[in-house]
Amino acid sequence: MAGRTDCQMPDVTLLGSENTDYLFEYSPGVLEAIDNLHTERDYFVKFNCPEFTSLCPKTNQPDFATLYLSFIPDKKLVESKSLKLYLFSFRNHGDFHEDVINIIVNDLIELLDPRYIELWGKFTPRGGLSIDPYVNYGKPGTKYEKMAEQRLLYHDLHPEPIDNR
Amino acid sequence: MAGRTDCQMPDVTLLGSENTDYLFEYSPGVLEAIDNLHTERDYFVKFNCPEFTSLCPKTNQPDFATLYLSFIPDKKLVESKSLKLYLFSFRNHGDFHEDVINIIVNDLIELLDPRYIELWGKFTPRGGLSIDPYVNYGKPGTKYEKMAEQRLLYHDLHPEPIDNR
Amino acid sequence: MAGRTDCQMPDVTLLGSENTDYLFEYSPGVLEAIDNLHTERDYFVKFNCPEFTSLCPKTNQPDFATLYLSFIPDKKLVESKSLKLYLFSFRNHGDFHEDVINIIVNDLIELLDPRYIELWGKFTPRGGLSIDPYVNYGKPGTKYEKMAEQRLLYHDLHPEPIDNR
Amino acid sequence: MAGRTDCQMPDVTLLGSENTDYLFEYSPGVLEAIDNLHTERDYFVKFNCPEFTSLCPKTNQPDFATLYLSFIPDKKLVESKSLKLYLFSFRNHGDFHEDVINIIVNDLIELLDPRYIELWGKFTPRGGLSIDPYVNYGKPGTKYEKMAEQRLLYHDLHPEPIDNR
Amino acid sequence: MAGRTDCQMPDVTLLGSENTDYLFEYSPGVLEAIDNLHTERDYFVKFNCPEFTSLCPKTNQPDFATLYLSFIPDKKLVESKSLKLYLFSFRNHGDFHEDVINIIVNDLIELLDPRYIELWGKFTPRGGLSIDPYVNYGKPGTKYEKMAEQRLLYHDLHPEPIDNR
Amino acid sequence: MAGRTDCQMPDVTLLGSENTDYLFEYSPGVLEAIDNLHTERDYFVKFNCPEFTSLCPKTNQPDFATLYLSFIPDKKLVESKSLKLYLFSFRNHGDFHEDVINIIVNDLIELLDPRYIELWGKFTPRGGLSIDPYVNYGKPGTKYEKMAEQRLLYHDLHPEPIDNR
Amino acid sequence: MAGRTDCQMPDVTLLGSENTDYLFEYSPGVLEAIDNLHTERDYFVKFNCPEFTSLCPKTNQPDFATLYLSFIPDKKLVESKSLKLYLFSFRNHGDFHEDVINIIVNDLIELLDPRYIELWGKFTPRGGLSIDPYVNYGKPGTKYEKMAEQRLLYHDLHPEPIDNR
Amino acid sequence: MAGRTDCQMPDVTLLGSENTDYLFEYSPGVLEAIDNLHTERDYFVKFNCPEFTSLCPKTNQPDFATLYLSFIPDKKLVESKSLKLYLFSFRNHGDFHEDVINIIVNDLIELLDPRYIELWGKFTPRGGLSIDPYVNYGKPGTKYEKMAEQRLLYHDLHPEPIDNR
Amino acid sequence: MAGRTDCQMPDVTLLGSENTDYLFEYSPGVLEAIDNLHTERDYFVKFNCPEFTSLCPKTNQPDFATLYLSFIPDKKLVESKSLKLYLFSFRNHGDFHEDVINIIVNDLIELLDPRYIELWGKFTPRGGLSIDPYVNYGKPGTKYEKMAEQRLLYHDLHPEPIDNR
Amino acid sequence: MAGRTDCQMPDVTLLGSENTDYLFEYSPGVLEAIDNLHTERDYFVKFNCPEFTSLCPKTNQPDFATLYLSFIPDKKLVESKSLKLYLFSFRNHGDFHEDVINIIVNDLIELLDPRYIELWGKFTPRGGLSIDPYVNYGKPGTKYEKMAEQRLLYHDLHPEPIDNR
Ligand SMILES: [Ca+2]
Ligand SMILES: [Ca+2]
Ligand SMILES: [Ca+2]
Ligand SMILES: [Ca+2]
Ligand SMILES: [Ca+2]
Ligand SMILES: [Ca+2]
Ligand SMILES: [Ca+2]
Ligand SMILES: [Ca+2]
Ligand SMILES: [Ca+2]
Ligand SMILES: [Ca+2]
Ligand SMILES: [Ca+2]
Ligand SMILES: [Ca+2]
Ligand SMILES: [Ca+2]
Ligand SMILES: [Ca+2]
Ligand SMILES: [Ca+2]
Ligand SMILES: [Ca+2]
Repeated sequence: MAGRTDCQMPDVTLLGSENTDYLFEYSPGVLEAIDNLHTERDYFVKFNCPEFTSLCPKTNQPDFATLYLSFIPDKKLVESKSLKLYLFSFRNHGDFHEDVINIIVNDLIELLDPRYIELWGKFTPRGGLSIDPYVNYGKPGTKYEKMAEQRLLYHDLHPEPIDNR
Repeated sequence: MAGRTDCQMPDVTLLGSENTDYLFEYSPGVLEAIDNLHTERDYFVKFNCPEFTSLCPKTNQPDFATLYLSFIPDKKLVESKSLKLYLFSFRNHGDFHEDVINIIVNDLIELLDPRYIELWGKFTPRGGLSIDPYVNYGKPGTKYEKMAEQRLLYHDLHPEPIDNR
Repeated sequence: MAGRTDCQMPDVTLLGSENTDYLFEYSPGVLEAIDNLHTERDYFVKFNCPEFTSLCPKTNQPDFATLYLSFIPDKKLVESKSLKLYLFSFRNHGDFHEDVINIIVNDLIELLDPRYIELWGKFTPRGGLSIDPYVNYGKPGTKYEKMAEQRLLYHDLHPEPIDNR
Repeated sequence: MAGRTDCQMPDVTLLGSENTDYLFEYSPGVLEAIDNLHTERDYFVKFNCPEFTSLCPKTNQPDFATLYLSFIPDKKLVESKSLKLYLFSFRNHGDFHEDVINIIVNDLIELLDPRYIELWGKFTPRGGLSIDPYVNYGKPGTKYEKMAEQRLLYHDLHPEPIDNR
Repeated sequence: MAGRTDCQMPDVTLLGSENTDYLFEYSPGVLEAIDNLHTERDYFVKFNCPEFTSLCPKTNQPDFATLYLSFIPDKKLVESKSLKLYLFSFRNHGDFHEDVINIIVNDLIELLDPRYIELWGKFTPRGGLSIDPYVNYGKPGTKYEKMAEQRLLYHDLHPEPIDNR
Repeated sequence: MAGRTDCQMPDVTLLGSENTDYLFEYSPGVLEAIDNLHTERDYFVKFNCPEFTSLCPKTNQPDFATLYLSFIPDKKLVESKSLKLYLFSFRNHGDFHEDVINIIVNDLIELLDPRYIELWGKFTPRGGLSIDPYVNYGKPGTKYEKMAEQRLLYHDLHPEPIDNR
Repeated sequence: MAGRTDCQMPDVTLLGSENTDYLFEYSPGVLEAIDNLHTERDYFVKFNCPEFTSLCPKTNQPDFATLYLSFIPDKKLVESKSLKLYLFSFRNHGDFHEDVINIIVNDLIELLDPRYIELWGKFTPRGGLSIDPYVNYGKPGTKYEKMAEQRLLYHDLHPEPIDNR
Repeated sequence: MAGRTDCQMPDVTLLGSENTDYLFEYSPGVLEAIDNLHTERDYFVKFNCPEFTSLCPKTNQPDFATLYLSFIPDKKLVESKSLKLYLFSFRNHGDFHEDVINIIVNDLIELLDPRYIELWGKFTPRGGLSIDPYVNYGKPGTKYEKMAEQRLLYHDLHPEPIDNR
Repeated sequence: MAGRTDCQMPDVTLLGSENTDYLFEYSPGVLEAIDNLHTERDYFVKFNCPEFTSLCPKTNQPDFATLYLSFIPDKKLVESKSLKLYLFSFRNHGDFHEDVINIIVNDLIELLDPRYIELWGKFTPRGGLSIDPYVNYGKPGTKYEKMAEQRLLYHDLHPEPIDNR
Repeated sequence: MAGRTDCQMPDVTLLGSENTDYLFEYSPGVLEAIDNLHTERDYFVKFNCPEFTSLCPKTNQPDFATLYLSFIPDKKLVESKSLKLYLFSFRNHGDFHEDVINIIVNDLIELLDPRYIELWGKFTPRGGLSIDPYVNYGKPGTKYEKMAEQRLLYHDLHPEPIDNR
């Protein structure tokens, strides 16, 4: 017996469906949301995405990153397969690391109107340096805005050891 | 010499008993509580549960997770063998990751009426993404409600490295 | 030249002595204290104890744990060899994990009257689950009582990965 | 452009198909093979399977293992989705660890008639002990039979550290 | 459906039974064997035992070790619960590390008459030094005797890093 | 002072050049070789390539792998920037894991005519399973052919732990 | 399609350009900035730099460090290739570890006028000791000045284990 | 060109000098200070010292520790070679772990009059237990005194795993 | 009950004795042997010694190493406490790393006349380089002499990663 | 008392001397040898060198590597400080990775005439790929020539995981 009945999942057109078209150019429209069944509670949903790739906007060289995405949902959760397709749609898209991370956060804010959201991208190095942008957001005018400020204050106090190997 | 006498453990019907029936469909009724002998003190009890498995509600594909459960007991502790049977009862049950984690917390609140409780589920990836919901709760109208809010604020400030291998 | 003269260590009957009797039934009386020479300062003393073993009170099966003990001394330090003998005295003693950790803290409070103390026990799994109780204490009516509350609030925000191997 | 044309994949009825029925009782018939396009060469194909679960034949308690499967193909490769379904079919099946590992090897020998095959199962502990059976096989009367004997000789010369956590 | 029928497990009196008596003085008689169903094949069965403890024969101080036991069965497998009880029976027994490891191997040879067997004990340090005896054996007059000699030759070529922490 | 003069590097058109065109469809023609200055000696050159990505030939879903390439050169070394471009050219190309690894080895044999070469691809999981093909080759009729057979015999005797996280 | 058009990148003279001159004496003038497109938001940009080397001012012996640089941009981002050239310019420059880290922070404050910036250098040991200076800064008279003070307070609460190997 | 001219380093008699006398009995007089060139700023200087050894005051047995020393300088930095000699001077000196750590902090306060300082010693085990004292200090009557209290509050919230191996 | 009776341990004057004099100048005479009770069998005894320290013969600077000692005993085992005292006796002794390792092996050959012995010393770096001598020996004219040659051939095929931190 | 008298170290002009000139252009002449006092025995001396840096011969960009050097000495050992100066002399020298490793081996063969020598360089990545050349050598016409061939055969059978972070 499944915990959700079909009537609770009208938007889930992708999960369990064969007709998946992988789009390889930036496609925010592919994102889908489903209902959050636990809106009475603040809780975190986290997605680990170690298979992110895009292109350098100047050299066209492929870039690679692991993304760590976490949010406190309000009315909506992001449907996981649509998130996969969205992230994969950056495959042949060119943009700077700092811009890519901001864009993804903006698109998910638009889709989910979350109470809180954050995204940390950790890219592989080019020329010996690697870049790891971190963006977060709390709904303006709520306690979550203050939460975003607090989590930025505590961000990355213990940097992971990096030796490019 | 055992520190607890038998009269202090009237509810423990499972531990040390042979007649264990493993239930493989969601069975909250199997949960049992025992008395907390140290109610004068706030302390944490933590259960590490790396052997959790359930089913995807749409595809019926098995899902796997490690659960990290922590709580500050009030009058009751969860009896460990009954917790094992309860978690194992999700084996052939289908539900979304976010729902499973919320349901387990709700059942334990009902059983234990704890001062504070939290649960972090870390699932294996499907399609390159893994999902890690985190839910917590403090008894409403007490300082533990504020504690839950604080721990949510500090949650996962240093994400563990994930590469799907 | 040793930093402590003999007259400062009148209670140390165990360290460097051959007549060690290992007691294997719970023996709080074996604990000994020595003077803290730095009472003007708050500082932590920590003991790592990966060789703790006791018995399950119902099945008599041996249990194993690593204990992490930390305290801010007031007038007294625990003499390290007596602590070893005390912890070893649980060897053939049966008690639940949650009770064992509370009992050890209680005994050390009685011995040392510390400003602050905490103990985290991490046990090996039985039936796929492992239990890690954490108990702390600050001297009532002092700032250390508040410190205990604060450290409970921050406890285990980043659970260690567990896979039972 | 895909490297294999459709005519080279007539047996692949599962990959990319929606109609997946997950069987949870031992089902060797679900296994499917595809052609090895590189039969002129000895090479290894390895599958890492950290999501294996079965039942204890006496207590019905769930068991968990990570399987490491490697083989040198002859005419056939195992189709990866069918291997997943086959391994998942042990979900509600009861058998001893040593038997499970032998049975899987036997089924894959029957399906693939491989030049060489080996399987290492690493189970989570019960009662403080974990069991890791390792089975291998080389086609009788060929040099691969000798290879199996050699690899058994070199097996696990550096055991991984295990502490049940 | 379980893979072994009851008639194939006549000796298994311990697994799934409540009447377990834990013996804490060296008790080789507790060991039980079950039939090996795959005698046509050479394969390894390995037991990881991180919860071994005995006593120092001179000081009576508890010693702790992780044991790594591997064997190629002939007619018999060791029943896992009886192995647990046997290893636990060293709990209050005093012997040197080198002797303990040799004795366990001797007892298992007597029980199983295995084709090949090896045991590596890794003890915690005393006085800054730790001791790790390794013993192996192949049935005399067979190719397994040569196998034992070969595996001794290749033993521990890459020592694990040790810093006593 | 550079150790190689320009006349020794006539083929290096890519390294240090701005006009890099990244090709994202399988392009073996982009590979370039340079002279091996140490042909009197057998030695290994190894490339670690953690940024490999291609497509699944049936579902078009992106696949990701880390490649470990090693060879003993004869007359030629592979120019490192051309190797990067060649591997990046699989970006939008669809093929099975086993085929991709064989194809890369074949192309490098054609380019370099090496004494010995091997390639190990470690892919991220799909549906809980990951696939790691390993292919090697020694020049036929030379001692390196025997070397390839030997290294296949010793391949992956200590599988790395995999838990899909 | 690249996310930034050319007109948004007028200062990027280095990235994708062949005419790179590596300067090996301290050259702050090589630093270049680009526009921050997300000034409405506080977010972190982090650079991991494991390839830093300079000279000891007294002995001229080469020193090596990994640098961890993080900042919250105001109007400007540092162009990554110019940062690489700047850091590489310390190659033949002599200075004490504490001074090097302060100088780099000063130069980046001058270039970027950031809201917040921090730099942690972790050097390899000389004579058994290694030195890890950590410097941070928040724009005076803003909330970021308080942020710098807070992050200094929380700095390095869990020192990484160091054994000089 | 070195960043410090000779006139800024009048006290550095040890670094780059051949006449080093290693003293093996507690010698606080060997410590030397140099000027802090960045007094306008609060920043951390950290020394990792994994090669500390002293003697047990009762048994004369050598003790070993890794020291982690961090401070915010005021007018003075500790000269690194003199720190090495000072720490090495404990080599044949006997004292309890708790006393050694307090003494070193006291000597450095006397030498440097720092704004803030902390020292964590992690010793290897004796009799199965290891001791890790942690001492800190902030200049009395300044905000750094409060900082010391805060950092003691946050000290060691995530104890490192210890198994004595 | 201890496994060895007192009459089998006549030489053990140190273990369990209080009158331990720690000698800090090279003292091979402190070494003691005990009888090997299992002479009918070839087996390994290994000692991990992470607390070794000596002096540089030219600069008098302390050196630190972890020693890995393994041997196949003939008639004698080394008594573990005497080994500790012997190794500690190098504390104030000056010698080159290569010489220290050879000398220890020579002394143990003289004491034990072992069938096989090996010693690997891993020192901490000086000036950025660390030195790890490895010495082994097999009894001349026996198969163990060939064993030593073979183990030298296989020595350190997979060097541990070193970064001096 | 030092184990080597001065008359045994006539060539050691660098160790313990102040007049060190660091040369930053390839300087094989700086290498010095000392006598091997244990020529009757085959043993390994290993140097770990994580601080190697040179330049790319085409782009002049700094390259970084960790070197693992091992040899069996004949009459001579390499003096460790001279080895450091020699390796540091590559600092401003440009050469391909494959050439650098061959050159260092050639220079050490010329200096030491060793029985056996090997060198593995592990460089940091450029453009996503890292290169790790491995060169070895055994004295021609001796058993060490065969040893070199054997060790090449066994080289890097278990590649270390690389992810460029
Ligand atoms: Ca991972
Ligand atoms: Ca684990
Ligand atoms: Ca794991
Ligand atoms: Ca573990
Ligand atoms: Ca552990
Ligand atoms: Ca361990
Ligand atoms: Ca360790
Ligand atoms: Ca270590
Ligand atoms: Ca993993
Ligand atoms: Ca280290
Ligand atoms: Ca450890
Ligand atoms: Ca290291
Ligand atoms: Ca490293
Ligand atoms: Ca890595
Ligand atoms: Ca990784
Ligand atoms: Ca790394």
